Amino acid sequence: MPANLSATRQIVVTVDVVLLTLRDGRLQVLLMRRENDPFAGQLALPGGYIHPQQDDDAGAAARRVLADKTRVRAPYLEQLYTYASGARDPRGWSVSIAFYALVSEQALRRTGREVFELLDADALPHLSFDHNRIIETALDRLRNKSAYSSLPCYLLPDRFTLTELQQTYEQVMGVPLEKSAFRRKLADLGFVEPVPGARQTGQHRPAQLYSLKAGARLAVFERPF
Amino acid sequence: MPANLSATRQIVVTVDVVLLTLRDGRLQVLLMRRENDPFAGQLALPGGYIHPQQDDDAGAAARRVLADKTRVRAPYLEQLYTYASGARDPRGWSVSIAFYALVSEQALRRTGREVFELLDADALPHLSFDHNRIIETALDRLRNKSAYSSLPCYLLPDRFTLTELQQTYEQVMGVPLEKSAFRRKLADLGFVEPVPGARQTGQHRPAQLYSLKAGARLAVFERPF
Repeated sequence: MPANLSATRQIVVTVDVVLLTLRDGRLQVLLMRRENDPFAGQLALPGGYIHPQQDDDAGAAARRVLADKTRVRAPYLEQLYTYASGARDPRGWSVSIAFYALVSEQALRRTGREVFELLDADALPHLSFDHNRIIETALDRLRNKSAYSSLPCYLLPDRFTLTELQQTYEQVMGVPLEKSAFRRKLADLGFVEPVPGARQTGQHRPAQLYSLKAGARLAVFERPF
Repeated sequence: MPANLSATRQIVVTVDVVLLTLRDGRLQVLLMRRENDPFAGQLALPGGYIHPQQDDDAGAAARRVLADKTRVRAPYLEQLYTYASGARDPRGWSVSIAFYALVSEQALRRTGREVFELLDADALPHLSFDHNRIIETALDRLRNKSAYSSLPCYLLPDRFTLTELQQTYEQVMGVPLEKSAFRRKLADLGFVEPVPGARQTGQHRPAQLYSLKAGARLAVFERPF
């Protein structure tokens, strides 16, 4: 066993999850008050230690931590970046493998949990550790990737109208999109499909509901919306 | 101290570096024969344990490992992805924070080291651990990012002609580029500048030499070359 193996074992390995949702057209991030020191009582991302006996890999650890702490099962979870240094945690050298996840506001409400807070992702107070920086990186990734992929769909409930889908793209990308060009592009890309017989009720003109195509994973496009 | 802290300390934390260069117009990756088990004698990426007493952060660890093992000081080094699971190393749960780095063939030659091998990145044999997968991710990242950034410059020596620069973009991107459009775009982007009085010798028509602008970091463009 190499001499430095004992040294590397001084390193604590965690996962942290930036869970994002859209509420009233604005990106919100899920935060929790820390129960323990350091930073007890302060807001932080949901996170925790990797459990080598339990977690197959870092993604499994992130999903477990998120489910345990918030009861949220996010339909989309992606590794973001790894924050690893001797300065980010007062307890010593630590590694945070950071993930970001997307979920609809409706699914968040269904968890019925009052253990977390949703804050406007673009107007955050000072958070524990380097969590402000992690969230900035997640917002950059989401915004850069959205124009070129089906990513914003994961902020919507399972069924949505095309108007809701366009609004979601506009809100994430921060730019207005032209309706007919948007719909043409959607038809070309073909990652959503109408739900047979399903229409949005309660409107003067009920709109067809759509869903992500069954088995569709993240669709990536050559050109932006 | 949380009950699980001792468990997380069973996790070994390493860095691995995918060092890429261009030789005869093809991307090559630097590999070394492993001295110790597991996989003794097999080819692997240069890598090593993080030394918490010595390394400020994961990037510093990657630069140290690369310099110690290969004497290479790469002008460009970027975090790629973190491979973290119980299955990737027969010794147990392990984390590899993977980086990729770019260097010119000329700088590699100057190290005068015979401890490494350069292999064609697109035709690799089976490597140790999950290193084939790590290299594939690095090639994807490099190719995706090159069309939109000054990244390929880091595969060139400090001084280069515009023809060499165009060839480098073409080789990395795998597509031919139109010369006048390429030069117009370069002029617009302005991340290279002529080196006063420096011309490539030994040609029938000596060409002006260029370099990355002083203090220029990675330039990212809105539209591809």
